[in-house]
Formats: sequence, C-alpha cells, structure tokens
Amino acid sequence: MSAAADERAVLAANEAFYRAFAAKDVAAMEAVWAGTAPVACIHPGWQALAGRDPVLASWRAILTSASSPRIACLGAKATVHGDFAYVICYERVEGGYLIATNLFVRETGAWKMVHHQAGPASAPDDITEPPAPTAPTVH
Amino acid sequence: MSAAADERAVLAANEAFYRAFAAKDVAAMEAVWAGTAPVACIHPGWQALAGRDPVLASWRAILTSASSPRIACLGAKATVHGDFAYVICYERVEGGYLIATNLFVRETGAWKMVHHQAGPASAPDDITEPPAPTAPTVH
Repeated sequence: MSAAADERAVLAANEAFYRAFAAKDVAAMEAVWAGTAPVACIHPGWQALAGRDPVLASWRAILTSASSPRIACLGAKATVHGDFAYVICYERVEGGYLIATNLFVRETGAWKMVHHQAGPASAPDDITEPPAPTAPTVH
Repeated sequence: MSAAADERAVLAANEAFYRAFAAKDVAAMEAVWAGTAPVACIHPGWQALAGRDPVLASWRAILTSASSPRIACLGAKATVHGDFAYVICYERVEGGYLIATNLFVRETGAWKMVHHQAGPASAPDDITEPPAPTAPTVH
C-alpha cells in the first residue's frame, strides 16, 4: 500500500472512531479498537486506562450516558510509520474544543486504535468549519 | 534487541526528555526530538504544533521562561511496536498533575521523540511517590 493510501486508511479508521462516538454505537466503537495489541485510553481529566476491558467499559459508560457529549472531528492529520500511525485532530464538543492524539496499529490488515488521549485546547484558527445547517433554500 | 531491552531504551529516552525539561537544558531537549521524522507537540491548552522548528521554538520559550514549571515524571509505561513506541506517564507539576502521551521512533538506532501531548489529570492513585527530601539523618 502506498504512503498516501496508508494515510487515507488511517484517517478512515479515525473517522470510524468519531462516527461510533457521535452515533453512540457501542458495537462500532468495539470494532474500532485493537483486539490483540495492548490498548490504553486517557479521557479528559481522567487517569489512564490500560487494557481492552477497562477501555471498552469506559466507552460503553460514556456512549450509554444521557450526558454523552455531541462531538465532531476537525482537522485530522495522520502520520504513518510502518505498521503504526498517529492522528492529531480537534474535537468540537458543546462548550468548546478538545485536541486528541489517536494511535493506530495495523492488525490483520486493518488499522485499529490502540490509544486515545483528549484534552482541552484553544479553538483551532487554521481549520475551516463545516457550514452550520441552514434553512432549505427555496428554488 | 529484545522486547524488554527496547522498553528500557524507550523509557530511557522518555527520562531524557523529562531530565532536559527539569534542568531547562535546551540543547538536551533538542537532542531528545527526532531530526528526520516529522514531529508534533500539544502543550496543555495550546493548539497543535507541527514541525521540528515550531516544536523546538516552543520548548526554547518554555525552558527559558522564568515561569517554566518544575516537573517530575511518574509511573511511565512504555509500549513498543517495532520501530515505534509510546509512553504514558504522569507529570507532577506545581498545583497538580498532568498526564502525557509521548511517541518515539527509532532513528539511526536511537529512540527519538516525535510527539508529546500533555493535559490535566486527576492525581494517580496507583503510583508510589518518591519520598520527599528530608533533613540529613545524624549518625
């Protein structure tokens, strides 16, 4: 696979993570994370979680909570080093922005998340926001 | 190199980062970061920095500032995937704790930092603190 194709595949895996998060889809979230490689996760303000069971339990708790935040990923950039990759991106949540580092490994041919850290950030100034939804135009 | 030796070498590179930080040693900090691989850095509350020049400029500004924080690294755990590795650790600073993800690549045989993200964390409850300095015992 070419470097550009690897980057696209990593960004697609990153998008799958945020799609599962936004849709509160526990099964899709479980599929995003590596099944064999050791995984870890640092939610904003939490201690580090290590191991697939604690990490996925945290996601089940977040996704099934009534206060699960609305989230959108912006400005994702992927860097690939062989079978390992990281993505840096902003997360727009209610009340502001977070910034995240997401790590992936290639596992049985697919890019799988092995670590996620998100923390508070100032608003990105070099990212074009998707346009806000507007009322339908009358043609 | 065995997996255990790789982990030790990665943890040594991580310690070199915090030693440079604590000693405000700009040259040592420059030596910690990769010279060829693309680098990035997310300081707490900042936007992401990308590229060796902006990242090292940020460290020069931090290390030469009168308000540069005192810092100690605690509970570092390394995970190695081939020529890529990440360390999760706590940072004890004045006023509380941060938690960090530090990424390393093997570059011309040595582990070099390619990314650092630190953000606020609750106090670690599973880490033994080094003992506080005490007055010399009279023998």
